[in-house]
Amino acid sequence: MSLVKEKFLKLGAEYAPGQEVRQNTNEVKLRGEKIPGIPVDFSHGDVNAFEPIPGSLDNFIEGVHIGGEQAYTEYRGSKMIRENVAEKLSNFTGTTINADQNFIITPGTQGALFLAMGSTISRGDKVAIVVPDYFANRKLVEFFEGEVIPIQMEYFHTNTCAGLDLNQLEDAFKAGVKLFLFSNPNNPTGVIYSQEEIRSIGELAQKYGATIIVDQLYSRQVFEGRAYTHLSAQNILDSENLITIMGPSKTESLSGYRLGDAFGSAKIIDRMEKLQAIVSLRAAGYSQAALKSWFDEPAGWMTRRIAEHQAIRDDLITKLRAIEGIKVRATEAGSYLFPRLPELDVTIEEFVKVLRAQANVTVTPGTEFGPQFTDSFRINFSQDHQAAVSAMERVIKVMELYRK
Amino acid sequence: MSLVKEKFLKLGAEYAPGQEVRQNTNEVKLRGEKIPGIPVDFSHGDVNAFEPIPGSLDNFIEGVHIGGEQAYTEYRGSKMIRENVAEKLSNFTGTTINADQNFIITPGTQGALFLAMGSTISRGDKVAIVVPDYFANRKLVEFFEGEVIPIQMEYFHTNTCAGLDLNQLEDAFKAGVKLFLFSNPNNPTGVIYSQEEIRSIGELAQKYGATIIVDQLYSRQVFEGRAYTHLSAQNILDSENLITIMGPSKTESLSGYRLGDAFGSAKIIDRMEKLQAIVSLRAAGYSQAALKSWFDEPAGWMTRRIAEHQAIRDDLITKLRAIEGIKVRATEAGSYLFPRLPELDVTIEEFVKVLRAQANVTVTPGTEFGPQFTDSFRINFSQDHQAAVSAMERVIKVMELYRK
Repeated sequence: MSLVKEKFLKLGAEYAPGQEVRQNTNEVKLRGEKIPGIPVDFSHGDVNAFEPIPGSLDNFIEGVHIGGEQAYTEYRGSKMIRENVAEKLSNFTGTTINADQNFIITPGTQGALFLAMGSTISRGDKVAIVVPDYFANRKLVEFFEGEVIPIQMEYFHTNTCAGLDLNQLEDAFKAGVKLFLFSNPNNPTGVIYSQEEIRSIGELAQKYGATIIVDQLYSRQVFEGRAYTHLSAQNILDSENLITIMGPSKTESLSGYRLGDAFGSAKIIDRMEKLQAIVSLRAAGYSQAALKSWFDEPAGWMTRRIAEHQAIRDDLITKLRAIEGIKVRATEAGSYLFPRLPELDVTIEEFVKVLRAQANVTVTPGTEFGPQFTDSFRINFSQDHQAAVSAMERVIKVMELYRK
Repeated sequence: MSLVKEKFLKLGAEYAPGQEVRQNTNEVKLRGEKIPGIPVDFSHGDVNAFEPIPGSLDNFIEGVHIGGEQAYTEYRGSKMIRENVAEKLSNFTGTTINADQNFIITPGTQGALFLAMGSTISRGDKVAIVVPDYFANRKLVEFFEGEVIPIQMEYFHTNTCAGLDLNQLEDAFKAGVKLFLFSNPNNPTGVIYSQEEIRSIGELAQKYGATIIVDQLYSRQVFEGRAYTHLSAQNILDSENLITIMGPSKTESLSGYRLGDAFGSAKIIDRMEKLQAIVSLRAAGYSQAALKSWFDEPAGWMTRRIAEHQAIRDDLITKLRAIEGIKVRATEAGSYLFPRLPELDVTIEEFVKVLRAQANVTVTPGTEFGPQFTDSFRINFSQDHQAAVSAMERVIKVMELYRK
């Protein structure tokens, strides 16, 4: 078999969030009747329920009227917009970001992740990733022909930190891992790494000369005023060995514009731009203009958005925890929940298909986030509040039908 | 040196079109005074001079108002828009394109190229590309660790075809080349492959079981009503071994939306979508809506646009051909000219920097299109007509100052 064929066999996207419409659910045999209700797609946030930052479209339109200068930016993004965003992100993270050397705008945070990984992995490199973590992390390492070294996060063993196994991480560095990628808050569990965890990660990477890529996509949506620690502001790790990724696609609902960014190491940012030159040239020029509204939301907008999400979270957790055999850790930041189910008669992938066919609810199987999560699924609860609660009731009903 | 470091050393973007602002021109020593004039950036088309298709922004805004469904499309693009565009492209090319199986929307044609190459190249594969051709083609092969097999195009030896060396191409296939990538019309020369050339390319690929990726980005802007042959409509090559790439960024000036697409082999399109899942997820959802205006231009709009470009071309060619030692083949389609200069006292890269510093004119050095083109530069003449003519006069003045 050719190498490229082999690579693409591993690169399945059938259960990837957003691709469910390509699944064949016809062959699924249902136990009992369909359960009616408003369809809810928990695989991603609903930007109709939580709309983009006011003024984003106006900024886009203004970009179109600027014309050529906005259409054809440097590959790393418009200088003016980089300066605008780098300053706002410097303030948010407590880091000093040079817009010219240390910052790049990308097509979504997925684009930033791909470029950062492609700029740091050599074939055969050992790369540590967390399980569970964002579904593409493993695929990225495999695509660039690195070797995945999984680091366990025991998120049910604690509620004062994420639960990362730091001994395992140190062992991985000792065994030659030169790159560690993780999301904070963690995707899919929504837990935040404690300051001690972040500092330990930084110290270990510094001790062993490793590079860190940290995906902070959901770091603005923190519940109950919890502490959030930016690794980039700790001054522990050589700043040339750190890339931080953020973007306005989640809490801010700008996903339709496909915008992300990365900041940190000038050397890695330079490579990311060179790679962007052959991958997609740049984030859509006019879309870049929508970044002006990011971190410039109307007064109270973000506070209200966080409170509304917290209220949905609370209702869903109450529903889930009322059921024997279901376990769920409360989201600390972001819009994900990752409940663990009791034993079922069907695999988690089959359960996902049944949910769509029987209850019009879309969730993402735990196995997208690590092969061992055969009893968990992820939801993004950034949805219409009532629709989400009613959909979760249907999920529970269907689960009872398939409980072992 | 690590593999990834080595890879990025080859992946220079300093002279890549659009990146000139990052060049250091301070150290350039000028012969004579600066030559004043309206700055012209010939590295890409000027979307202020030739504006996007009327209605594109309205389609985008309508997409924003559709909301979540437009923001989160399948990775291969919105089903409705795929159906719309696949039908229009089927009519244009004389091909049958199934919107569900054989079509993908990408972030620009650069995105399509990257995905198509990444979906077909295994490390160590021999990949044939044309010299001269689009600057990223060589870089893509190298990034995916393929071996570049250059095929010469003797564009000055003929004016009835592109001048591709078909013997060399057959030898390459005999030697094991399994993938051939070329642009038609050719970038940077603007020549069209004859029907005989296209059919021979298809027959050779079929004979040797090779796959072809053809980049037809500029195929709508054909001058003097010349014949243009779509390989996809010839039924010579197994349709599962062919990918055609198009997009609305050039003639149609929609570059600010970053849109491209690819059609052909279901197997390769499937892989491209899986790769897109980790590269950038999808073309910006709202931008996809702008594709509705593509191939749906107001009556006469395209004819007028072609005529206006032809007029610019004619004036520039007249200027260039009046100078002893300059040789240029007339553009047959698209907006590129690739003049060859007489011997200069400076390298072509230095000449490019001098032009920017002394005459406020940006061109792309020939070496971006093949290492041997040390005496040529490329311009995109989709510019304000008078500004382009006056800029070319300045190019010629500067050239005379540096003539050996």
